[in-house]
Amino acid sequence: MDLPTSVEIVEVGPRDGLQNEATNVPTPEKISLIEALTAAGIGRLEATSFVSPRAIPQLADAEDVLSGLPSGNGVVYGGLIPNERGYERAKAAGVGEVVLVGAATESYCRANLNRSVDKVLDGFTPIAARGREDGIHVRANISTVFGDPFEGRPDRDQVLRVVSRVVESGIEDIVLSDTIGIANPRQVFDVFTLVREAHPDIDFGAHFHDTRGLAAANVLATLGAGITSFDASIGGLGGSPNAPGAGGNVATEDLAYMLAQMGIETGIDLDLLMDASDLLERLVGHPLKTRIDRSLLDDPSGAR
Amino acid sequence: MDLPTSVEIVEVGPRDGLQNEATNVPTPEKISLIEALTAAGIGRLEATSFVSPRAIPQLADAEDVLSGLPSGNGVVYGGLIPNERGYERAKAAGVGEVVLVGAATESYCRANLNRSVDKVLDGFTPIAARGREDGIHVRANISTVFGDPFEGRPDRDQVLRVVSRVVESGIEDIVLSDTIGIANPRQVFDVFTLVREAHPDIDFGAHFHDTRGLAAANVLATLGAGITSFDASIGGLGGSPNAPGAGGNVATEDLAYMLAQMGIETGIDLDLLMDASDLLERLVGHPLKTRIDRSLLDDPSGAR
Repeated sequence: MDLPTSVEIVEVGPRDGLQNEATNVPTPEKISLIEALTAAGIGRLEATSFVSPRAIPQLADAEDVLSGLPSGNGVVYGGLIPNERGYERAKAAGVGEVVLVGAATESYCRANLNRSVDKVLDGFTPIAARGREDGIHVRANISTVFGDPFEGRPDRDQVLRVVSRVVESGIEDIVLSDTIGIANPRQVFDVFTLVREAHPDIDFGAHFHDTRGLAAANVLATLGAGITSFDASIGGLGGSPNAPGAGGNVATEDLAYMLAQMGIETGIDLDLLMDASDLLERLVGHPLKTRIDRSLLDDPSGAR
Repeated sequence: MDLPTSVEIVEVGPRDGLQNEATNVPTPEKISLIEALTAAGIGRLEATSFVSPRAIPQLADAEDVLSGLPSGNGVVYGGLIPNERGYERAKAAGVGEVVLVGAATESYCRANLNRSVDKVLDGFTPIAARGREDGIHVRANISTVFGDPFEGRPDRDQVLRVVSRVVESGIEDIVLSDTIGIANPRQVFDVFTLVREAHPDIDFGAHFHDTRGLAAANVLATLGAGITSFDASIGGLGGSPNAPGAGGNVATEDLAYMLAQMGIETGIDLDLLMDASDLLERLVGHPLKTRIDRSLLDDPSGAR
């Protein structure tokens, strides 16, 4: 089995997870959660979102979260941004990277971002340029690459066209997202193989939801296509307010366990990750959607 | 992605699932469940077990179940047998195949079968011979190939040795089981590749538990190793009374959905399978452990 020897897990729970929670987690607890995650070995994460506080009140404290985080520890704290105003805020807050959101399909793009796919992509170019100038890494996350909640699956030409436009905007790090958890392993292998062949110099990442129980299999297929960067959300939190039936993200716990079992290096300490998981469960006040818990980490025999 | 074009799902729920339930499902309802499964396209299943009714009271009605099933429909009804007395009973009841159980590890073998691995395998040879004589297909299911609840993972030499002994007994159809759901995709790919290379003329099947959420990924890796026969249990029922923390089998619903999404033929109609799933839920009186339900079968967009 020809698989990468190491993989980067990009934690998105503090942003993608918490924005979908009914509970507003207080700022100090958000900071504690992020510190628990980085203590476990997470080196890159979406810490918050610089969108309108009216749109996502759960993340209205973006600046306060960033200013409360330790620096100089090598961790890349990222923030989602909707536009140049968001870029300004994120830059002022001291993020290491910004994440732009686009979509591969018109229906979801309009529902989620209230603009056409092309209009959204038009906004990427100036931000890519500013990021290069400011030394802030720019990442693009393309939603609904594997299926749209309203119009079904985009064809390959559409996916290739959108990815090419993102590349033309000057962004060199592109995440393809299965926003509604509808992807299957053959599909993700084919799509990632296709985009890598079309753009061999671009860093591609994967963002899966576990809505239909196929996230782990999709990760395996994506590894087989040579991808080494995976978004995951602690506790399997997440979804999309604008995608009916999106389900939760693949849980960081589940992904880290799977990769560890396969001998693929992630830098994550599973016991410490379970500490972060326990903390999150207390903060959100409901059971988490993971397949792995502390009791399942070890072989029943006591071997690990 | 180089995957088989069609796969056989061997349903084990009426045996492996129901034997782990607290509720005794009445014989007519077991027959209804099996009929619902075969109506959905299941062509081969473990209908019951010809073990001592004292050991497994839930399956004490083995003969009555078999005699109540329709014949001449091409469905292969199998029965698990512990020994030659079980073989006699299964043959008299008219099974199409018998399933023998062994193990790859001593600790679980003694806990589950109260004999050493070699003693258990010694019993396979006469039954293989009788099956050939009687035209009854003989299948061997080897437990704990990927991990034992007491002693951890057997090494490759041990797995190869056990498989070779089963082959020497005259059995040409061997299922490798992840009894406690501890396998990972790299491991199953390696083990199935190894045994296929050692025994290219043998039919190998896989039996996974979804204890740690890796069953779908393990299926994908096993497909990649060229295996085309998978056990599954409707509703994800099952476990092992003698394996602490075994968890449930991979659910037939989840496996059939995954394969359908990948365009791999199984002969199964997912809507009719959900009818069987609904019936099972009523019979056992508790929620099933599946990732897929009827509401998740379709894309939210209405496309399938």
